[in-house]
Amino acid sequence: MADRYVIGVDYGTDSVRAVVVNVRTGKEEATEVAVYRRWSEGLYCDPGRNQFRQHPLDYIEGLEACVKGALAKLPAGSGERVIGIGIDTTGSTPCAVDKSGTPLALHEEFSDNPNAMFILWKDHTAVDEAALINEVAKTWGGTDFTKYEGGVYSSEWFWAKILHTLRHDSKVRQAAYSWVEHCDYLPALLTGTTDPLKMKRSRCAAGHKAMWHAEWGGLPSEEFLTRIDPLLAGLRGRLFTETYTSDVSAGGLVREWADRLGLPAGIAVAVGAFDAHMGAVGGGIVEKALTKIMGTSTCDMMIAPYDVIGDKLIAGICGQVDGSIIPGMIGLEAGQSAFGDVYAWFREILCWPINSVLPTVAGIAPEALAQIRRDARSRMLVQLTEEASKLEPGATSLVALDWLNGRRTPFANQTLKGAVAGLTLGTTAPAIFRALVEATAFGARAIVDRFAAEGVEIDQVIALGGIPQKNDLVMQITSDVLRMPINVAAAEQACALGAAMFGAVAAGAFRSVEEAQREMGSGFSRTFKPIDRNADIYDKLYKEYLSMGEALEGQLSRL
Amino acid sequence: MADRYVIGVDYGTDSVRAVVVNVRTGKEEATEVAVYRRWSEGLYCDPGRNQFRQHPLDYIEGLEACVKGALAKLPAGSGERVIGIGIDTTGSTPCAVDKSGTPLALHEEFSDNPNAMFILWKDHTAVDEAALINEVAKTWGGTDFTKYEGGVYSSEWFWAKILHTLRHDSKVRQAAYSWVEHCDYLPALLTGTTDPLKMKRSRCAAGHKAMWHAEWGGLPSEEFLTRIDPLLAGLRGRLFTETYTSDVSAGGLVREWADRLGLPAGIAVAVGAFDAHMGAVGGGIVEKALTKIMGTSTCDMMIAPYDVIGDKLIAGICGQVDGSIIPGMIGLEAGQSAFGDVYAWFREILCWPINSVLPTVAGIAPEALAQIRRDARSRMLVQLTEEASKLEPGATSLVALDWLNGRRTPFANQTLKGAVAGLTLGTTAPAIFRALVEATAFGARAIVDRFAAEGVEIDQVIALGGIPQKNDLVMQITSDVLRMPINVAAAEQACALGAAMFGAVAAGAFRSVEEAQREMGSGFSRTFKPIDRNADIYDKLYKEYLSMGEALEGQLSRL
Repeated sequence: MADRYVIGVDYGTDSVRAVVVNVRTGKEEATEVAVYRRWSEGLYCDPGRNQFRQHPLDYIEGLEACVKGALAKLPAGSGERVIGIGIDTTGSTPCAVDKSGTPLALHEEFSDNPNAMFILWKDHTAVDEAALINEVAKTWGGTDFTKYEGGVYSSEWFWAKILHTLRHDSKVRQAAYSWVEHCDYLPALLTGTTDPLKMKRSRCAAGHKAMWHAEWGGLPSEEFLTRIDPLLAGLRGRLFTETYTSDVSAGGLVREWADRLGLPAGIAVAVGAFDAHMGAVGGGIVEKALTKIMGTSTCDMMIAPYDVIGDKLIAGICGQVDGSIIPGMIGLEAGQSAFGDVYAWFREILCWPINSVLPTVAGIAPEALAQIRRDARSRMLVQLTEEASKLEPGATSLVALDWLNGRRTPFANQTLKGAVAGLTLGTTAPAIFRALVEATAFGARAIVDRFAAEGVEIDQVIALGGIPQKNDLVMQITSDVLRMPINVAAAEQACALGAAMFGAVAAGAFRSVEEAQREMGSGFSRTFKPIDRNADIYDKLYKEYLSMGEALEGQLSRL
Repeated sequence: MADRYVIGVDYGTDSVRAVVVNVRTGKEEATEVAVYRRWSEGLYCDPGRNQFRQHPLDYIEGLEACVKGALAKLPAGSGERVIGIGIDTTGSTPCAVDKSGTPLALHEEFSDNPNAMFILWKDHTAVDEAALINEVAKTWGGTDFTKYEGGVYSSEWFWAKILHTLRHDSKVRQAAYSWVEHCDYLPALLTGTTDPLKMKRSRCAAGHKAMWHAEWGGLPSEEFLTRIDPLLAGLRGRLFTETYTSDVSAGGLVREWADRLGLPAGIAVAVGAFDAHMGAVGGGIVEKALTKIMGTSTCDMMIAPYDVIGDKLIAGICGQVDGSIIPGMIGLEAGQSAFGDVYAWFREILCWPINSVLPTVAGIAPEALAQIRRDARSRMLVQLTEEASKLEPGATSLVALDWLNGRRTPFANQTLKGAVAGLTLGTTAPAIFRALVEATAFGARAIVDRFAAEGVEIDQVIALGGIPQKNDLVMQITSDVLRMPINVAAAEQACALGAAMFGAVAAGAFRSVEEAQREMGSGFSRTFKPIDRNADIYDKLYKEYLSMGEALEGQLSRL
C-alpha cells in the first residue's frame, strides 16, 4: 500500500507555506510558498500608525496556490493519498465576520475597508484599548481575567483589537455579528462551518489572547466586558464557550474545497493553532525542554503535566494554557521581544556609513554604489560574527541590555529600552556586537530563571527558527550563558511539520500528538554544548546584566 | 619708533610653534611650526605600554627651527625688535638632569635611554607608583599633600614618574641629580641657568603636579616622600622651594642662544607654564569666565581672587594653584577626560564597515578602496553632525554617559566608562552621535555645577581649541545645556599668544598680565547663545544623565 500524506499549512506574516509530509516517515515530500499579493503591495497598512491588516482573499488565494503548488511537484494523483490537513497561523489576528461566518471584507461593501479585514498580530492600533482593559482588570474588584495571560493585556490581542474597531468604525460595528481568529477561520472555511457559534475555536488562541479559561467557564464575564466598554455588550454570547485542542478534527474537508485543492473530500481538518505552538510540536518539544523559536524575536515554549502545574500561576511569563501546545499538558509561553532584531538593528547602524557617507565620496558610479550597499549589508552580520568570535568571553568591559523592543518576559514591560554600558575609547564594533549577542543570551537566561523560580524545571533547550541555522556564535554563547545543551531541530519548516502532525492525529493516523512526534519527527541536526570555562565567566556577567537592568529599569521606562 | 615684538613659543605634543606677536597691537606677525623629528619616527615610545618619551634634542632643534623660521618670514632685522620670550609646554613632562641642569639624554651614555628623556604628560608607565602615592597620602596620618590637586594623584604626574624611573633604572637613578619640568627646562636653557637649584621653577607646574603649596612651605615633607619610598630620600633638597609665576623673568637670553635664534642677547625670558594655562590667558580668561580648551579632552580653567577662594578646598576639581594662570589670582583647573575623543571613537566605530566589510565586497580596486577609506573617514563626523543637527532636542529616547576615558571632573574616577541607554530598534547612527554630543555637554555642565556648589560663580564660557572652530552643533548644544553664552576666542593660537603676553610682561612692556590681555588680546570671533526652549528640554535630560550616572557609577567602575 502506498504511503499516506498529510498537509501542514503554515500562515506566516508575509506568505503561506504548504508542506506535504509522509505520515509514515515524516519526510517532507513537497513544499510550496505563496506570497500574500495585496499585503506585498502594502495595501490596507499604515506602518507609521502601526496599522497592519490582511485581506481574507490573500489567505484564500494563498492557500489554493501553495497547496496545489506543492501537490504539483509530486506524481499525478498524489492528492488522493492525503488523509488530513493541519493549519497554523499568526495570532492574535482576529477579523469581524457576519452571521454566516464570512469575513466582512469579502462583501463588496467592505472590500476595501481595513477594519473589515484580519488585524495582523503586530498591529498596534489598539494601544488605548489595551490600556483600558488592563486598568479595568486591575481595579474592577472581580477576577483578574488577565492572570493566565501574564497579567498584562496587549494591544496585539483579540479584545483590544475588537474594541478599537467597534469604537472607530460604526459600519463594521453594525455588520459584525461575531469575530474569528485567523486560525479559527481557515478550518471553518475548509470544513464548511458557517455558523460562528459552531466553529471549533482554537484553545491556543482563546487561552492566550482572549482571556478564555476553564476557571471562569470560558470567556471573561459579561459584567467585566461591559465595564470595559458598553460597546462590548452581548458580543460574548456571539463568540464561543468551548475551545478545542488541535488533535481534534474541526470536520471533514468540504467538496468545494476538496475540488479546489485537488484533495479527497471528507478528510480531517485539524482545529487550528498559532504557528509557534505547532512549531514547538514540529521541533520536538517534550517535558523539561524549553523550546525556543529564535528569529527576529523569540517565542519560548514549555509543556508540563497538569498535575505538576495545575492552575498555579507562573508569574512573569506571557501565558499558560491547558493544551495550547500538546493536548493534556499545560502549555507555557514566554519570549524575548527582540532577538535577531537586536543584531539587525546594529547592522543598520553600521550600514549608515555605507548608505549615507559613501555616496558623498567621489568616484563611485551610482550602479556600483547600489551593488556595494547590497553586498555590504548582506555581509555585515557575517563579518561581525567572525570578528566577535575571536574575542574571549569577558575580554571587554561591555554589558548590554537587550530590551530594544521592550521586554516580553520576564514580567512584560514594553516601555523598556536597550543600553550598552562599559564603553571605552578602545571599544570596537565587533565588541559591541558580541555584547549585544551576550545580552540576548542573558535575556534568554532570565526566562529560564523565571521558570526555575516557579519550580518549572528545564534540562535542555530545543531551538528552531532562522538563527539556529545561521549563527553558531549566537548559539554557542546562548548555550554557555544558559549552561545547557541546545538541540537544534532538524526540521527547517518546523511549524508546517507540526501542523502536519496535528493533521495526522486529527485524521486518526496516530493516537496522540506525542506519537505523531515520535513517528514523524525529524530529530535534531546538531547540539551546542556549554563550555564550562565560558559559563563561569558568563555567570558573573549575567549578574552584571541583572544589576544593570535593576539600576536602569525605571529610567529606561521613562525615557 | 618701530613696533616691538614678543615671541610666544608653544610646545605641543607633536610639534612646537613660535609666534611673533606685535606688542602694541597683539597682531600675529609670523608663525612657524617645527615637528619633533625623533618623536614623529616613533622613537623611545611603546604605545602598548603607554610609554611616551621625548628626546631633549627634539625640543632644542624644534625651538631653533620654529623661531628662526618665523623670523625669516619677516623683514630682515626683525629679530632685533623682539623684547621678550614666553614659553608654554605640555605637562607634567619631567626629565632627570645632572648637576649642571643637563637632561641625562644629552650625554652620550644616555642618548638612547628613554628613562633619561622627558616623560611626556600622557605616559602612564607609573600607574603603580601613583597608586602608592595615593595610598600613603590617605593613610600616613600627616597632611594630605594631594588636597590642592583634587585629592587623587595621577600616574601622569611628576612624583609618580620620578619614582617609577628611580625604581626601574639604576643607572639613571645614580646619574640623576635633580628633575625638571619641560616648562622649567626651556627658560633655564635660554637664560643659561645651569644649577637646578637656581632655576626659576614654574608655579603652575609645581602647584598642579608636584604637590607644591605655600601651606606646607613648598614641596611635600621629606618624611612623607620617604614614607612613599626610601628611594626618594634627599631628592626634595635637590629640587626647589620657591616657585614663580610667569609674569616674572627667568633671566636674560644668553649670548649663545641669542646668536642661534637671531635675537638680541639679554631680552627677558618669562618663567614657563603649561600650555592650557597660558592658553587661557591668550584666550581672554577673566573672573567668572569658565575658560574651556575643547579638543580631544577639555581643560577647564577659572581664576578667582585669593580673597574669595583663599585656601578653601574646591572639592572634586583637578587642582587650585595661586598664580597658575594669572599672578595674584587662584587658578582653578578642571576638565573632561574625553570630549572630541568621544566623537572620534564613534567615528571609528562607523569606519569599521568601511575598513573591514568594504574590502570583502567584490569590484573595488585596492587603490580606490584606500581612497574611499580616507574620504569616508574625513567625511564621517561632518555628515553625522549634519544629520544630528536635524534632530530636535529630546526627540529621541537616548541618554549617554561621556566617561569613555574615565572622568576627570567632577570627582576624578579614571575607572569609569561610557554608556548609551534608551536604545530602540529605531535608533539611528546620527541619533547616537547627538546623544554623545549631549553627553559631553552634560559633562561640561557637571563641572559648572561643581564650581557653583562651591560658590564659584560662572557667568560665561570662553572656548578655545579645535572644536569651537569646527563644530557649531557641539557648541550650540553645549551652550543650550549650560544655559550660558559661549564666547569663542578669536586667537587660533591662543597658547602661543598667551606665552607671548607673558613674554611681554616679563619684559616690562606691561605692568600686569591683565594689561597685556587688554592690549594684545584678540577678543572673540563669535558667540553661541543658549536657546531657551532647548535649554528647558536639556534641564530635564541633564537630570536623566545625573540619575543614570548615579545608578551606574559603581558598576561602570567595576566592569
